[in-house]
Amino acid sequence: MKRFTMLSAAGIDKAREVMEVTMGRAKADLVITNGTLLNVYTGELLPGQNVAIKAEWIAHVGPEGEERIGSATKVIDARGKFMVPGFIDSHAHIADGFSKPSEFLKYAVASGTTTVVTELMEPYPIAGYEGILDFLESFKDQPVKVFATAPAMVSTSKSARGLSEEVLSKLFLRENVLGLGESYWQGVLQEPEVFLPNFKKALDMGKKLEGHSAGAKGSRLMAYLSTGISSCHEPTDAHEVLERLRLGIHVMAREGSVRRELDEIAKIRDAKIDLRRLILVTDGLNPVDLHDMGNMDHVVQKAIDCGFDPVSAIQMATVNPAEYFSLEGIVGGIAPGKHADLLILPDIQTIKPEWVISMGQIAFTAGELVLQPRDHLFSERSLNTVHLTRRFDASDFSISAAGRTSPAKVRVIDQVTDLVTKEHVASLPVIDGKIQADPVKDLLKIAAIDRVVSPGKKALGLIRGFSLRAGAVASSSAWDTSDIIVVGENEKDMAGAVNRVVELHGGAVVCVGGEIKAEIPLPIFGLMSDLPMEPLAQAYRKLAKTMKALGCPLKDPLRTLTTLTCAAIPFLRICEEGLVEIKTGKKVGLFVD
Amino acid sequence: MKRFTMLSAAGIDKAREVMEVTMGRAKADLVITNGTLLNVYTGELLPGQNVAIKAEWIAHVGPEGEERIGSATKVIDARGKFMVPGFIDSHAHIADGFSKPSEFLKYAVASGTTTVVTELMEPYPIAGYEGILDFLESFKDQPVKVFATAPAMVSTSKSARGLSEEVLSKLFLRENVLGLGESYWQGVLQEPEVFLPNFKKALDMGKKLEGHSAGAKGSRLMAYLSTGISSCHEPTDAHEVLERLRLGIHVMAREGSVRRELDEIAKIRDAKIDLRRLILVTDGLNPVDLHDMGNMDHVVQKAIDCGFDPVSAIQMATVNPAEYFSLEGIVGGIAPGKHADLLILPDIQTIKPEWVISMGQIAFTAGELVLQPRDHLFSERSLNTVHLTRRFDASDFSISAAGRTSPAKVRVIDQVTDLVTKEHVASLPVIDGKIQADPVKDLLKIAAIDRVVSPGKKALGLIRGFSLRAGAVASSSAWDTSDIIVVGENEKDMAGAVNRVVELHGGAVVCVGGEIKAEIPLPIFGLMSDLPMEPLAQAYRKLAKTMKALGCPLKDPLRTLTTLTCAAIPFLRICEEGLVEIKTGKKVGLFVD
Repeated sequence: MKRFTMLSAAGIDKAREVMEVTMGRAKADLVITNGTLLNVYTGELLPGQNVAIKAEWIAHVGPEGEERIGSATKVIDARGKFMVPGFIDSHAHIADGFSKPSEFLKYAVASGTTTVVTELMEPYPIAGYEGILDFLESFKDQPVKVFATAPAMVSTSKSARGLSEEVLSKLFLRENVLGLGESYWQGVLQEPEVFLPNFKKALDMGKKLEGHSAGAKGSRLMAYLSTGISSCHEPTDAHEVLERLRLGIHVMAREGSVRRELDEIAKIRDAKIDLRRLILVTDGLNPVDLHDMGNMDHVVQKAIDCGFDPVSAIQMATVNPAEYFSLEGIVGGIAPGKHADLLILPDIQTIKPEWVISMGQIAFTAGELVLQPRDHLFSERSLNTVHLTRRFDASDFSISAAGRTSPAKVRVIDQVTDLVTKEHVASLPVIDGKIQADPVKDLLKIAAIDRVVSPGKKALGLIRGFSLRAGAVASSSAWDTSDIIVVGENEKDMAGAVNRVVELHGGAVVCVGGEIKAEIPLPIFGLMSDLPMEPLAQAYRKLAKTMKALGCPLKDPLRTLTTLTCAAIPFLRICEEGLVEIKTGKKVGLFVD
Repeated sequence: MKRFTMLSAAGIDKAREVMEVTMGRAKADLVITNGTLLNVYTGELLPGQNVAIKAEWIAHVGPEGEERIGSATKVIDARGKFMVPGFIDSHAHIADGFSKPSEFLKYAVASGTTTVVTELMEPYPIAGYEGILDFLESFKDQPVKVFATAPAMVSTSKSARGLSEEVLSKLFLRENVLGLGESYWQGVLQEPEVFLPNFKKALDMGKKLEGHSAGAKGSRLMAYLSTGISSCHEPTDAHEVLERLRLGIHVMAREGSVRRELDEIAKIRDAKIDLRRLILVTDGLNPVDLHDMGNMDHVVQKAIDCGFDPVSAIQMATVNPAEYFSLEGIVGGIAPGKHADLLILPDIQTIKPEWVISMGQIAFTAGELVLQPRDHLFSERSLNTVHLTRRFDASDFSISAAGRTSPAKVRVIDQVTDLVTKEHVASLPVIDGKIQADPVKDLLKIAAIDRVVSPGKKALGLIRGFSLRAGAVASSSAWDTSDIIVVGENEKDMAGAVNRVVELHGGAVVCVGGEIKAEIPLPIFGLMSDLPMEPLAQAYRKLAKTMKALGCPLKDPLRTLTTLTCAAIPFLRICEEGLVEIKTGKKVGLFVD
């Protein structure tokens, strides 16, 4: 793994050109004058600073330096304003945010997020190595830097589990792949023989191991972290943060669409501990949140609003993550030789960038994007990942109880929070040798249907908590798998929703009484939309509203639906192979014998 | 560059064995009970902690964990005592400390220094790549870990300058070579074409660039650091430290034999800035200091005595350097999965280790070494590096002024502090076509004589400040070169001293009136003694005393002598090619025309 620096990135000749400006022997391309600079290394606010930029790089920083302004130099007067480094989102899930990369990046830029580290896990089980390459390609030549972590693929589905050493090695040879992505602790401790060889490969190639230790504590947490895992973005309160910081890892506090934990986590400020290893992240944002709230600007603002000192909060989004990912040679601070990624803020408490400079370019100012992200043309293969070979009908969702006496005892996925499920056991009548949903008791049917590896292979079950009074909802985005996930009050609408997802080449669909009531087309890997953000956010809102009108009490119903296949969140999940108990990683039957 | 972790270092099977202890399913080899633990990550002092160790590794840390004690488990009761991570000396010069590695390591171990990062620059111009390998070999299988940085070889002597890309690449492929060693800023800015390709090679291979920016400031400092340099151990006061920290590098505050700067640097504590990037180092210790004061224990104690909070001071010798060198996966803190390197202190203010645990082994306790460093057998080649082919006589040191009128104006190296020289111009009579030393005016003769590349090639000059009333002193240790350096009141003793250095196959020698009055044999590369520390320290003391008795006012005369060839310290130096002006890097003539 190389060290990221101006010299290694730009080469000797370019670096020497920048150094000429540093030395005052050549003129800068851009100089920002007279701002108060946040030096994140020392934590100081330094007034009256000028920052001289040459090409993509910061050439000079200091109270002097006006001699670097020539007739062709662009000057921004920052008098009365504050200069801070561009923000880093250290744990993004671009492919899980429903918007395509170029749309995501528009909002990242506007929010002052000049570096993104995203997971690659979502497209992998769907489109494999080639799909990942296509996805990575979409980050090239963009106004901000996007790094990635290779898929770890802890999964409920055996067909999605793990990566070959060969594919991993190829990914790790790529400079912009910084590590192995989140490896859920349960799976790692359950099957170390599957995951530790990949961990070792990552470490041997100089990469970081992203953790995911939701709910782990004590000796199991220690065993998990001692495999070399160096981060966790899952703690939900100050106590869990403290336990993890004490174990020597970096802790990512998230404030995003999946969870918002800063209110609780911010209580850590009362512990008066060293916070150099606390990092702010989103862990992914849906179109509505991205559109309405922004990206890292929102997270940093929230940290300040929760009582963190603004300097400390900004360190958590700049130098702390830069150090964690060994990116400190190019990002995370305003200093000569670093990428010219910086924001001009009206004051240090108000995280609303007036200017966003990214790699030396003005990317955003006066409320408008100046640099437009490039719209990547995804390959035909990436746009064609839903491979069900026939239309589904109601009978595909009937659950056979042949040979069982009525009532039969069945396991039910009990949605006890928006993310966590428990196992509930229900007694259901066997009618015509089949188990029926019982909407009155909120027992709906659920199915996970593989769309890639063994198209049509499926598992059926029951779920409580979606509370649909009618219809069905289906999604081709289903965490850690290549499944379509569908929940319904009746089999016909389940088939209708799934068939529409297939017609759309991927999407999220609500079908009621045979009619499509809401849909979001997600043709890119079946995960991301090709719509601009505005109509996408509108469609996202409509789908949630439609679900709520049908009785669904969940805050973000599509999000909850997509997590039903996830191998990380306790306790009972489903994939095309059947029901999975997360605590053991084992398949369990639908019937309790 | 791989990531240092238990998994990458010990392999999967060993790591899983340790994890069994972590999980409480197997017994530990060693458990330290009931100590107050300094958690350097959070800066907390946590009472009542147990640390369980399996093989070289920390398996478990916490208030519980007694179930990991079996009948074969060694137990250390740390009740009432403090556990802190083993110290890291991030900038050592083992080959410049006159003692051989095994003797140095005895004192390192006793001082609680469980990780050393040493320069390799000293043997390189003398013994080349093979010599470096032999030197590196001496660090293997030792009770503490020794990492190294490859020689950068900024030198006054062209023959010693730079390294081939081929040799560098081979060194960088070695895991324990963490970076490119100190590259003096003057040389880098004067000849970027020589040094930047090696910088790029280092960065591309994942290595760090050690800096040396003594006296640099403002735009020249910025230009130097923007080449990718990420540390400097040269600032002498809080102001210089602050300027460097603001520029985003790690600053090493040294308290060693060459310089002691903590009294001044510690004033930085009043700035109330973030100190995560401040690191404590020795920058090398001579035998007397090592013997009388210790190694990092002394430096950390001094930092506390200078007013740093003990937690902060210990962070500067543990987690801060571990993070700087990307070693945080194995050292720098007490946490599961890290190397079991830790000290038991009587209290957090008193840096006097009662126990030193290194890689899981008790290395030192009750004032005694338990683990003896291995005495490396250096190769014949490494022991035979003084290649003058003939004995020298007085005439070798006569300075011709043929054809010049008397008096002649000559440049004199003016030793204005123990390290810094200035150019002084003196008028000296030309007698018999020759320039004479003038001891009455403290104008002595100096010579630098190559002993490897062009054996016998020499340059002569004059020096003020050694103030010898008689005799001469010579040393085969002469920074950045393969020279013997000699200063004398008369030519005959200069020859006598040099001849004795040759007889010893390397050494430091004082010759007065034809008699050897003091000497230190330095047969290993002509740099290091094969004596145990006690007699070596005695010989070192005697040499200084002898010099002082001859009128020399320098605090550590041998140290000053060895630096006279150095390319880093202003302003006028000498090597076998002639006098060198450090500001320009150019050779200058002895005569001022």
